[in-house]
Amino acid sequence: MIDFYTFTTPNGRKPAIMLEEVGLSYTTHKIDITKGEQFTPEFIAINPNSKIPAIIDHDPGITVFESGAILIYLAEKTGRFMPQDLEGRTKVIEWVMFQMASVGPMMGQLNHFKRFATEKIPYAIERYEKETYRIFGVLDSQLSEQDYLTGDYSIADMATYPWIAAASFAHVTLDNHPNLKRWAEMLGERSAVQKGMAILQ
Amino acid sequence: MIDFYTFTTPNGRKPAIMLEEVGLSYTTHKIDITKGEQFTPEFIAINPNSKIPAIIDHDPGITVFESGAILIYLAEKTGRFMPQDLEGRTKVIEWVMFQMASVGPMMGQLNHFKRFATEKIPYAIERYEKETYRIFGVLDSQLSEQDYLTGDYSIADMATYPWIAAASFAHVTLDNHPNLKRWAEMLGERSAVQKGMAILQ
Repeated sequence: MIDFYTFTTPNGRKPAIMLEEVGLSYTTHKIDITKGEQFTPEFIAINPNSKIPAIIDHDPGITVFESGAILIYLAEKTGRFMPQDLEGRTKVIEWVMFQMASVGPMMGQLNHFKRFATEKIPYAIERYEKETYRIFGVLDSQLSEQDYLTGDYSIADMATYPWIAAASFAHVTLDNHPNLKRWAEMLGERSAVQKGMAILQ
Repeated sequence: MIDFYTFTTPNGRKPAIMLEEVGLSYTTHKIDITKGEQFTPEFIAINPNSKIPAIIDHDPGITVFESGAILIYLAEKTGRFMPQDLEGRTKVIEWVMFQMASVGPMMGQLNHFKRFATEKIPYAIERYEKETYRIFGVLDSQLSEQDYLTGDYSIADMATYPWIAAASFAHVTLDNHPNLKRWAEMLGERSAVQKGMAILQ
């Protein structure tokens, strides 16, 4: 059994998609970050970085935080959605890293300066909007000759999808990146993706 | 033989440390990002995201980008600096992810707004300085009862060190985080770390 600590954000939805895809049994626990519940001593004991998502897998008994690490852990545990050979696995981890280091942080900053900042700062909005569209271009190019980011459907797609699906939250559009848009529409039709995106709702 | 494409930045130094630690043969190629050399068609063929570092490992013939993916690849290839068992490996990957998703992106934004932005924006400087010190606190706490981030010295330490060693570049200090400071001083005494940090110099 897996305890899954999460909230309704792109990072919080990634493990939900994977858990649904592989059919592992899990219990969802809401950590309401709008109420600061990620800063309680109980949650810091699970994730010292005070961020969702995190999991406790009671078989074998391990706590994992960082959405990218959770995805890799679940892929290794189940042997699914990441190749077994070093070369194939490396390609998937590479695109999970691209999501973790660029897609998430940069769209996160764009969300902040567009929606949450107490000052309207055109320089910062322009900086992160420009970087977001550059990233969309990288993904669009990668998807120009294949259906999924690394060939077969993998945790790299699951890591990236919830951020791309939330583009409108930051008032950016996929309309100028047709391959990325087609990929997002295709993923959005998967039952497990729909269930994962709907956690806590 | 490994071709290593890099520059004198924290991310560019991470694989250099690991290559020195494991003693693999490699050739360093300078990609001068101050001259835009990461945007040439030749380099985009290696990394579609136009960022250093990247490697080509001619045995078995694989290109890898994203510093975190390169570290995991080299650890898996050599069987060193990352445990073989799932639980131990997951703990290392978790802290590599924390570095890739938080330490690097947030200190990178702090560097930008403190040193490179064409406008002085106090809101943004304060935002990223506060987040950098929060991250220092997470690392300091993790190092309060052990010498390295995940027990034994690993790629998680190698991923994090070059950013912490560059704290003064962003005018932040380790003085209020004694465990982190002690760890950085200890790592800085390693021969492979010194060689890796000195690439292209």
